[in-house]
Amino acid sequence: MSELKLPSRSADFSEWYNELVIRAELADYAPVRGCMIVRPYGWAIWENIQQSLDRSFKATGHVNAAFPMLIPRSFIDREKSHVEGFSPELAVVTHGGGEELEEPLVVRPTSETIIGHAYSKWIQSYRDLPLLINQWNSVVRWELRTKLFLRTLEFFWQEGHTAHATLEEAETETRQMLDIYRDFAVNEAAIPVIPGRKTASERFAGADQTYSIEAMMGDGKALQSATSHNLGQNFAKAFEIRFLDQNGVLQYCWTTSWGLSTRFIGAIIMVHGDDQGLILPPRLAPHQVVIVPIYKSDEERIKVLEAARRIRSELVASGLRVVLDEREGTSPGFKFNDWEMRGVPLRIEIGPKDVAKENVVLARRDTPGKGGKSFVPQAGISEAVSGALEAVQKALYDRALNFRNANTADPKDFEDFRAAVEKGFAYSFWCGSPECERRIKEETKATTRCIPFDGPDGVGECIYCRKPASEKAYFAKAY
Amino acid sequence: MSELKLPSRSADFSEWYNELVIRAELADYAPVRGCMIVRPYGWAIWENIQQSLDRSFKATGHVNAAFPMLIPRSFIDREKSHVEGFSPELAVVTHGGGEELEEPLVVRPTSETIIGHAYSKWIQSYRDLPLLINQWNSVVRWELRTKLFLRTLEFFWQEGHTAHATLEEAETETRQMLDIYRDFAVNEAAIPVIPGRKTASERFAGADQTYSIEAMMGDGKALQSATSHNLGQNFAKAFEIRFLDQNGVLQYCWTTSWGLSTRFIGAIIMVHGDDQGLILPPRLAPHQVVIVPIYKSDEERIKVLEAARRIRSELVASGLRVVLDEREGTSPGFKFNDWEMRGVPLRIEIGPKDVAKENVVLARRDTPGKGGKSFVPQAGISEAVSGALEAVQKALYDRALNFRNANTADPKDFEDFRAAVEKGFAYSFWCGSPECERRIKEETKATTRCIPFDGPDGVGECIYCRKPASEKAYFAKAY
Repeated sequence: MSELKLPSRSADFSEWYNELVIRAELADYAPVRGCMIVRPYGWAIWENIQQSLDRSFKATGHVNAAFPMLIPRSFIDREKSHVEGFSPELAVVTHGGGEELEEPLVVRPTSETIIGHAYSKWIQSYRDLPLLINQWNSVVRWELRTKLFLRTLEFFWQEGHTAHATLEEAETETRQMLDIYRDFAVNEAAIPVIPGRKTASERFAGADQTYSIEAMMGDGKALQSATSHNLGQNFAKAFEIRFLDQNGVLQYCWTTSWGLSTRFIGAIIMVHGDDQGLILPPRLAPHQVVIVPIYKSDEERIKVLEAARRIRSELVASGLRVVLDEREGTSPGFKFNDWEMRGVPLRIEIGPKDVAKENVVLARRDTPGKGGKSFVPQAGISEAVSGALEAVQKALYDRALNFRNANTADPKDFEDFRAAVEKGFAYSFWCGSPECERRIKEETKATTRCIPFDGPDGVGECIYCRKPASEKAYFAKAY
Repeated sequence: MSELKLPSRSADFSEWYNELVIRAELADYAPVRGCMIVRPYGWAIWENIQQSLDRSFKATGHVNAAFPMLIPRSFIDREKSHVEGFSPELAVVTHGGGEELEEPLVVRPTSETIIGHAYSKWIQSYRDLPLLINQWNSVVRWELRTKLFLRTLEFFWQEGHTAHATLEEAETETRQMLDIYRDFAVNEAAIPVIPGRKTASERFAGADQTYSIEAMMGDGKALQSATSHNLGQNFAKAFEIRFLDQNGVLQYCWTTSWGLSTRFIGAIIMVHGDDQGLILPPRLAPHQVVIVPIYKSDEERIKVLEAARRIRSELVASGLRVVLDEREGTSPGFKFNDWEMRGVPLRIEIGPKDVAKENVVLARRDTPGKGGKSFVPQAGISEAVSGALEAVQKALYDRALNFRNANTADPKDFEDFRAAVEKGFAYSFWCGSPECERRIKEETKATTRCIPFDGPDGVGECIYCRKPASEKAYFAKAY
């Protein structure tokens, strides 16, 4: 698998990405065009993402459930913006059990409609509110240009759907969930993100407000990494989600939805990876440490493996995720490359001399060559490894933040802006007109990513039309 | 929700079940006929099932992955028995992205075919074997007569798919996974099961051998609770899953598959439930203990809630899953009924007198009335509660086993047999002929459930044709 070198990341970022996904065995192409198989190593990353987010969801009072994948076609039509946004992307089931169906069904592209239908049955009184439900599932959207993890016909995600008695509560929920995504991105994935509000043209189909976290990939492009929508009363009105308030008056609910998908694995790859392959943030890595034993004779092998196994036991006992590579018939060099491709954050090398001296070599994945290597005594190895993992986690974040800062400009004019969005983000005053937004997109391919919550003090001039502007938006080419 | 009494379990088992599922808020009907919404309380049980099984799968070397839900129609046709078994049940996607598809796709009814396709790419050499992958997902089968959890158009499950170098290894895997299911049923769900081999007519479409665990429900009918299939080389040949063996010879792999679904929640309901509702085995219960505070005045309320919260903290700290019902405006009696409906195994009642005496009332869900109640000192409450939970777990298992034993007969003739399968299981010699099996089914509606591994010593006469028989099978009406 890993014998051949990857294409150079700097020379061809797109090919580098495609090859890395296959060679690190994260995902594979499915027989149906545009579908994806998430292979065990990729899924193990997703499981760690799931565990972390699920903990946060539950800590904030959310529960999980499962709604059906098949939705009556007519449901999609009930919310005006929703039908416009999703109709072109639907997969339609017309036959079941050998017969043509009276009403076609769609495979869910997202679940606002079917969950809205259920909520209208379940919610009667203010006592039933708030209703805070999440589900882990997959959805299907008929995408034409696909790329593993980033854009596929079927993708895996979680979608939270909540109903509230007031607009204020719904807005608080929407912002709370965005905060959870931001904390996750920063603290677990070591990815700096910009939280903010989407412009009207970039909103979810059916939302009054969409918030997102936006991250800069290694090629300077943006990736919308998670979204949280305040749906107002749009779906409540379309699906009759109503409650009797404390005064006995029938009111429409206020609903929200929010999601993070397997796209996020694409972000991890594109933010942290290098020419040798993936680099995983320690908190999400399926294997945080790989131990590679080095020996020539059988006698050496016995001694080295004995020590390696002892070290593994000690690390596992201290709660670390460890793999000991005991494969026969492959050289240590091959193993080094193989685990570097898979992005394991730390490598422990142990040979006969290390056994004799009671130390090991600790090599950091994020720091190539001798700079990343150190001798560490076997006594107290757990503390040393834990410390090194924290250092890698922090270094990955810092490097990504420095890269983003170095590639984010506050251009003085539109010529400057054009140059800025060729290499990264432009953070510019914008008058708020959809017309300027549209023209900027046409002329530069850069879209508004978000209007950050911590906006500028004072006012300026729109980067495009030069009219007065009170808001600054991030603009970038995006995945 | 729980104000009204359930239909009597003994008088109308089927209605009792249907009502219980809705009133305990385990699941609900979806807008598409035959589909199911698993509500948060039902899904929390499923999450506990998932965690337990997933641990066992991983401890035996399996990893999780995700394969696409959309499969080319032609894949299903490649394995002869498979296409016969599944063709009548397929949901077919004919349109995507607004256009008619060149080849129709099916929503997976099970994933042997698409996984077989992937394995043929991934497996090259004996070094790639065994390949041990599981996935947690949902599948669609166009069922006409549906019942929540037991038989729905879409259901949730796990499906394991493994590939091996030899028949022996595949057989060992198939039996190992059945053992994992048996251990789970017995130790986690408190459900006694009979592990055994299916007859040819009851095998999975495409399997050489199917093994199952069979449980007796509260009405004496059988429920196939999990299955494990030795697929021989059938799918390997249909999908060209081949490997170079250690002698450099190209060989077909031997594959297996095995699954347990949300049907199992139906089994838990039907084995343990009573006229008051669900009774959950403590190991799988989302809430193992509910604390109901009892007070009249505000002054009492403050004192009682203070003690109740202290007790909750102590129980949570010792690793128990606890809910404190602080709802206002509902009586303790209402709360008792409500949590009984939901099957919480233990209830702690605490009122002003209990606060003064530093004790609580502990009530067992499985033992109605005074017999299940005891006074327990607040000091050392965690030990008392843990002990009581173990006692409930054991009592549920023993009760189910006694019920099964009391309703399992070894009939002396076919008239006896007819009577036996009206109330439970018949364990009978059978000559092995499909013809006898078919006739028994026609005449009594009882099918062979399985041929247990610990068969009889010696031989007998077929219960139907009276010819010599060397095997005994369990016969029963089944869900």
